[in-house]
Amino acid sequence: MEQEWIDLDAVIVSKASAVGKKEMDGPLGHLFDLRDESDRFGADTWESSESEMQRMAFNLAMAKIGCTDGDIGALFAGDLQNQCVGSAYGLLDFDIPYFGLYGACSTCAEGLLLASVMVSQRIYSLCGAVTSSHYCSAERQYRTPLEYGSQRPPTAQWTVTGAGAFLLGRTENASVAEHAKKAVIRRAMPGKVVEKGVNDANNMGAAMAPAAADTLTRFFRATNTVPEDFDQIVTGDLGYEGGSILQDLMRFEGYPMDKNYTDCGQMIYHRKKQDVHGGGSGCGCSAVVLAAHFIPLLESGELGRILFLSTGAMMSPDSIKQGQSIPGVAHLLELRAE
Amino acid sequence: MEQEWIDLDAVIVSKASAVGKKEMDGPLGHLFDLRDESDRFGADTWESSESEMQRMAFNLAMAKIGCTDGDIGALFAGDLQNQCVGSAYGLLDFDIPYFGLYGACSTCAEGLLLASVMVSQRIYSLCGAVTSSHYCSAERQYRTPLEYGSQRPPTAQWTVTGAGAFLLGRTENASVAEHAKKAVIRRAMPGKVVEKGVNDANNMGAAMAPAAADTLTRFFRATNTVPEDFDQIVTGDLGYEGGSILQDLMRFEGYPMDKNYTDCGQMIYHRKKQDVHGGGSGCGCSAVVLAAHFIPLLESGELGRILFLSTGAMMSPDSIKQGQSIPGVAHLLELRAE
Repeated sequence: MEQEWIDLDAVIVSKASAVGKKEMDGPLGHLFDLRDESDRFGADTWESSESEMQRMAFNLAMAKIGCTDGDIGALFAGDLQNQCVGSAYGLLDFDIPYFGLYGACSTCAEGLLLASVMVSQRIYSLCGAVTSSHYCSAERQYRTPLEYGSQRPPTAQWTVTGAGAFLLGRTENASVAEHAKKAVIRRAMPGKVVEKGVNDANNMGAAMAPAAADTLTRFFRATNTVPEDFDQIVTGDLGYEGGSILQDLMRFEGYPMDKNYTDCGQMIYHRKKQDVHGGGSGCGCSAVVLAAHFIPLLESGELGRILFLSTGAMMSPDSIKQGQSIPGVAHLLELRAE
Repeated sequence: MEQEWIDLDAVIVSKASAVGKKEMDGPLGHLFDLRDESDRFGADTWESSESEMQRMAFNLAMAKIGCTDGDIGALFAGDLQNQCVGSAYGLLDFDIPYFGLYGACSTCAEGLLLASVMVSQRIYSLCGAVTSSHYCSAERQYRTPLEYGSQRPPTAQWTVTGAGAFLLGRTENASVAEHAKKAVIRRAMPGKVVEKGVNDANNMGAAMAPAAADTLTRFFRATNTVPEDFDQIVTGDLGYEGGSILQDLMRFEGYPMDKNYTDCGQMIYHRKKQDVHGGGSGCGCSAVVLAAHFIPLLESGELGRILFLSTGAMMSPDSIKQGQSIPGVAHLLELRAE
């Protein structure tokens, strides 16, 4: 039996976020770096808008530490568009080795995990991780074009228009000491694909919650920790429905998380005022909330130690039509302020 | 500037391949482990057939060395289906941490590269890499349903119905000494996304050849090697058109590969007799030819040192309709018989 978790030593040396109008108007709106009221980012199609958002976010993350393409060993990226073209086109201009990922909305943590392995193991001294989602490209691909004006059931989540970009380096890398503290990825627990029979594409929180519970339970058991050891336990986009299911499942597993659990999909919009039903979702959801909210709180020392999980629903519109249920996956990272 | 290549030490401890009828009837047909004349692998839909092919190939790779889920640290997998559901459903039954990849037809080398990093850096002692493609699921997703009987231009390639599964371990791992020699992944060069203006989805070889040339040229320069240092230089699925473009490009770069270059897409079918136009393609193409042909030749000592590149075209049907050109990516592995 292998050691289940991965020990890491990767500092988040830079991060940037880009979002659209609805995210600007949410409770975290003032924290995001780049905001476009039109959601278009100067592009002609929603698909290209998403690519452009990735490009701008990654560009800004690089500009913040003044690095160039040649300084970055590799880039881990992914999104929700078919064949992950949001990332392929968005990051095409960068002369950096490219690893394409598909983990649905778990891609943010998946990319950070793999980039952290690369820098922790001294394969590269600097690595990037970028992810995005766009409400308009996601709706027409997964559900119906916006122009149809479909009704949404109460459990449906709102795909975040947002891109998050991160640059990871090593602790001893002196050039990164720009803050009082640094946000360091110390451990990771990769997720397993878990499927519990949910086949409603308008209730993805319920499909993903068992995967988050599986990863969290395995992490607590393997590392001999409990939820109270962490200032905050954050999931990516379970939303209100999935978040409440996760809390039930964790109580059942003997790890109640009543005091310090939150979900990026619950944080990014005003629940009632913005009429988002089940909360936010999408690869961009956990990425922009991590970049704009949680990492700054670690850097300022307001948070000392958190668990961050991105949660993905691994179905396609075709697999749903063919009657398949929705498998989920959740990758976990432990971040510390050091 | 980072060191461009990655030094690795990962033994291919097991591999398995599964293919359909057209691949059975090709020149390498007798080498594949699992063959289904119906291309269905017992499933109802082409999408599920592909998943089942992955499941069977990975199962067999595990059975060959008698390992169980708990022995395997992580699984790297991907395919061409929207949202990579071929892999998500195919590997759902395995209780193993799962990293989803999307590198189009470069996924085989991408997965082997990342799995090799994990075992070389002692994060896990055993890791899996699985990829697949299926002619029938790919045609209806990327081009037109088979029932339409579309005409194919001469440069069009035939998507391979096949899945390749690999298990990677460490050199000193005594339990792997089943052959006279072992196939060891010693170095890797991750690919960059390269785009040279090709926008014909029926000529993907031309779109991918510049990416292969970029990775090969960077590898030869960085490692101070030349094509003659290798017994064979193998690309994944450039086919006849792309392979010939690559040879022209490499001649232009000062690294002619006239004597020892080959392409899995040129090897897998009888060119005239099977009427495959531009040759084979798909994630499964390089995976099954590596598993069934090249690794055995390394293990028997007939080949001593090869370069293996999987090549991917990173477009989607929508991006083509929106007038975008086709970016390519090619990841390189150096394999040695030791």
